[in-house]
Amino acid sequence: MRILGIDPGYGLIGYGVLEKNNVGIKMIDFGAITTPKDKKLSERLKIIFDCMKILIDKYKPDEMAVEQLYFGRNVTTAIGVAEARGVILLSAEEMKIPVYEYTPQQIKIALTGMGKADKSQVQFMVKTIIGLEKTPRPDDAADALAVAICHSQTNQAMRGL
Amino acid sequence: MRILGIDPGYGLIGYGVLEKNNVGIKMIDFGAITTPKDKKLSERLKIIFDCMKILIDKYKPDEMAVEQLYFGRNVTTAIGVAEARGVILLSAEEMKIPVYEYTPQQIKIALTGMGKADKSQVQFMVKTIIGLEKTPRPDDAADALAVAICHSQTNQAMRGL
Repeated sequence: MRILGIDPGYGLIGYGVLEKNNVGIKMIDFGAITTPKDKKLSERLKIIFDCMKILIDKYKPDEMAVEQLYFGRNVTTAIGVAEARGVILLSAEEMKIPVYEYTPQQIKIALTGMGKADKSQVQFMVKTIIGLEKTPRPDDAADALAVAICHSQTNQAMRGL
Repeated sequence: MRILGIDPGYGLIGYGVLEKNNVGIKMIDFGAITTPKDKKLSERLKIIFDCMKILIDKYKPDEMAVEQLYFGRNVTTAIGVAEARGVILLSAEEMKIPVYEYTPQQIKIALTGMGKADKSQVQFMVKTIIGLEKTPRPDDAADALAVAICHSQTNQAMRGL
């Protein structure tokens, strides 16, 4: 089972690809999509949509997991992220990949057992669970791997493996 | 010049099509796209994307005008609307239609001269400017015609017609 995890944004979108089987979990790749600041929002959304389709085509995930939005202080940024997130969910639907959504709290609990874990604890667990020497960079890619791990565990629980 | 105005949403998306020339403004059509409540968000986004492409293909607008988001009290609804709005902007970009965005305040000023006009004043002006007997229904279609009228006037001002 191959999982594509996505940390949504409109300037920087983190992605992480995991392979999960009954032996364990293996990291395939991670990275980020970036969009130019000087382009119009609609053009940036088109870049995200095209890059998402390329990613799905390249890694051929069985399922996709996307982080849900947490509304912090900056509402303007949150609107932009939500608009990009709509396009990301659409890309999964267009490519016929089942897509699952997880809240930041669900991801923290899945990785650390604590709903109030901080970013560094989550990133430490990403590194440990996948068996990496260093924490993946940028942070958005580590966050994308975190949502993919969260999905792999939730899936496992649902299937009673 | 044909303008497609859109009032974004994820359950109900209003649309209005206007034809503008140097004689005046003519209403071509208006209506709404709806998505089923029992479907997943990603599936509803795909319905919106497909319907938007069908609308653009049917009416062949030269330009598209979309209302910007106003963040009211219900943040959860606003996230959903922003996600749908991202897909709507993407549809214009995919179909190579230039897309313009207007705030609720810009639309109110364009139609009534007042930034604090209420909904019924805006709808009365939509009916009057286009020369309709009744206010278009649903409200979302009237709002879509309002953003299309706003764009036609802003365009006119920009071009010094």
